[in-house]
Amino acid sequence: MTDVPIVRRTATRLADGRALYYFDDSEPYVSGRASRAVPDPRPPAPRTPPGDLRWDARTGEWVVIAAHRMNRTHLPEPDANPLVPSSPARATEIPADDYDVVVFDNRFPALPHCEVVCYSPDPAATAGSLTPRRMRTVIEAWADRTAELGAADGVAQVFCFENRGVETGVTLTHPHGQIYAYPFLPPETDKVLRRIRRHREQTGRDLLRDRMLDEIEAGTRVIVHGAYWVAYVPEAARWPVEVEVAPLRDVPDIPALDGAERAELAELYPEIMRRLDRYYVGPDELPMPMPYIAAWYQAPAGPVGREFRLHLRITSIRRSPDKLKYLAGSESAMGVWISDTVPERVAERLRHLGGATGGSAP
Amino acid sequence: MTDVPIVRRTATRLADGRALYYFDDSEPYVSGRASRAVPDPRPPAPRTPPGDLRWDARTGEWVVIAAHRMNRTHLPEPDANPLVPSSPARATEIPADDYDVVVFDNRFPALPHCEVVCYSPDPAATAGSLTPRRMRTVIEAWADRTAELGAADGVAQVFCFENRGVETGVTLTHPHGQIYAYPFLPPETDKVLRRIRRHREQTGRDLLRDRMLDEIEAGTRVIVHGAYWVAYVPEAARWPVEVEVAPLRDVPDIPALDGAERAELAELYPEIMRRLDRYYVGPDELPMPMPYIAAWYQAPAGPVGREFRLHLRITSIRRSPDKLKYLAGSESAMGVWISDTVPERVAERLRHLGGATGGSAP
Repeated sequence: MTDVPIVRRTATRLADGRALYYFDDSEPYVSGRASRAVPDPRPPAPRTPPGDLRWDARTGEWVVIAAHRMNRTHLPEPDANPLVPSSPARATEIPADDYDVVVFDNRFPALPHCEVVCYSPDPAATAGSLTPRRMRTVIEAWADRTAELGAADGVAQVFCFENRGVETGVTLTHPHGQIYAYPFLPPETDKVLRRIRRHREQTGRDLLRDRMLDEIEAGTRVIVHGAYWVAYVPEAARWPVEVEVAPLRDVPDIPALDGAERAELAELYPEIMRRLDRYYVGPDELPMPMPYIAAWYQAPAGPVGREFRLHLRITSIRRSPDKLKYLAGSESAMGVWISDTVPERVAERLRHLGGATGGSAP
Repeated sequence: MTDVPIVRRTATRLADGRALYYFDDSEPYVSGRASRAVPDPRPPAPRTPPGDLRWDARTGEWVVIAAHRMNRTHLPEPDANPLVPSSPARATEIPADDYDVVVFDNRFPALPHCEVVCYSPDPAATAGSLTPRRMRTVIEAWADRTAELGAADGVAQVFCFENRGVETGVTLTHPHGQIYAYPFLPPETDKVLRRIRRHREQTGRDLLRDRMLDEIEAGTRVIVHGAYWVAYVPEAARWPVEVEVAPLRDVPDIPALDGAERAELAELYPEIMRRLDRYYVGPDELPMPMPYIAAWYQAPAGPVGREFRLHLRITSIRRSPDKLKYLAGSESAMGVWISDTVPERVAERLRHLGGATGGSAP
């Protein structure tokens, strides 16, 4: 935990002007060395504009209309994977011939700032297969991008997330996450922030801290309780599998995490993902990779809303090896979730899926 | 429109105590005649209790935990369809040997009041294949159940809806809708009601009426403009296919619709569904039945919230003949919808799909 890795960040531009950042964690820096920082060999091309915002007066929410995304790259064959390093034979989105972690502007952006975060040059890697060192580099990349995008004009919130599995609409299977910088406060953040403020007015305390302490005290839904983080299935879980991960200290966003917190998270995050990947067993008796959305809830950008408390939510629509949870009328139209699973049972299973890497402590 | 059908309502109980209501629209009343009102021949059985409510302090919302629903009837074979009339050989959920429209308590309820509405005894019928007369009977059943459930203790809102298509999680393909009576105000109603009140404070006008008038004035997204109703694709549509249907008169709920409004709706509702069923054409050049959620937004039960204005929203997750819209990180975790389709183009297509039954007027 005292071994703070040095991450070297190298900024460049792709042929169409999009920004790209290498985050190298090991010498010799595989992608960022001057001698290897090859330029993008592809011809300059016009950039795809972001979508249009339309105001929904009925709900008071913005909707993004991005029809061009209908044509985005959809589950390419391995030899057309745009997220591997470039080779002499083929130029991909990443000009270098190797990288540790790389972030670049999405080619098909929904919003003015949409970035892709590649976790590994290996198309077969997963968040669960990352070493703590590599995961730490991903965390450093999240922190860097959150700070930089959050300081940009017109950005109200930075959202780091990962969609995993074709069941979640994933169009590229290469291990990667995304970062959206919203020009408005998303409804979910707005909703939670209003609850936080109301709770503080009524009790003088922090809602999300109280909620975490309640989970620790109850204990029945805790999966891992580390020195700096706790992971649990929330009492009122909506999805068949749902895990929240919260820092024990009050922290508003990823950049505010200290070295020890980042180091433990670099072990805990892949550990949780490995347990999720062992959760369901298919008819062939092999574990089934879990489709999931992993979403970081951070304080809004700027001085407002710093009372927000960082937390991660991982949710899955898979409710059994052969069934998915569909959003039907109650969930989709009314916002009332009806869950088929019992949070305590989900937590019990996830507690006992700790592997050889070390029981319940991360 | 002056031909007001007579609907006869007959109440009975199933063997396990659940309520069942026949709505017969044609003499001789096929299900409700005393001579044919056969009792449920099945042995008395314990009733499945509704789910448990858990409070999510993070969002201020209730979540229903209903683990028993994991075992509900799932896509039975035709000879096990529980929604056809009973026969000498097999007792179904409906004891009579025929019916027009029937409503009964759901065997696997998520909430204390969950009802099933069978539109037709014919398993191959669809909302789009209903005659105006039969559709009118469905509307009468919705009105009856909304009024009765809305007057019951502890009911905050009555929600009439239909899930259609396995893509929407449907577990029974027989043509039917559902009615939920929520013991709390659903988040969606709460959100829209807050917008309505804010708009009235700011402008003195009705938000949903203004929004409907804006759509009529813009015209580019109107599908059908009748004497009493208008159907349009909303300007800020979230889903690949999304249609709103609103009465031209300020009406809070289905029971408040007058005879002329009900009569036109009985023609318009199946007409919209027929157009949706012609919207996508499969690789075999045959039309693909549209998966959809059709959701009636009504005023809350009781004296509060009567300023709510009735509207129907029909949404589909199908974004092309071979692709569905998945809720990924932005939609699912942040509540920010990113749409691949352009509302004006969707409306144009639906305008031109009017069939032999008569162009754009219902």
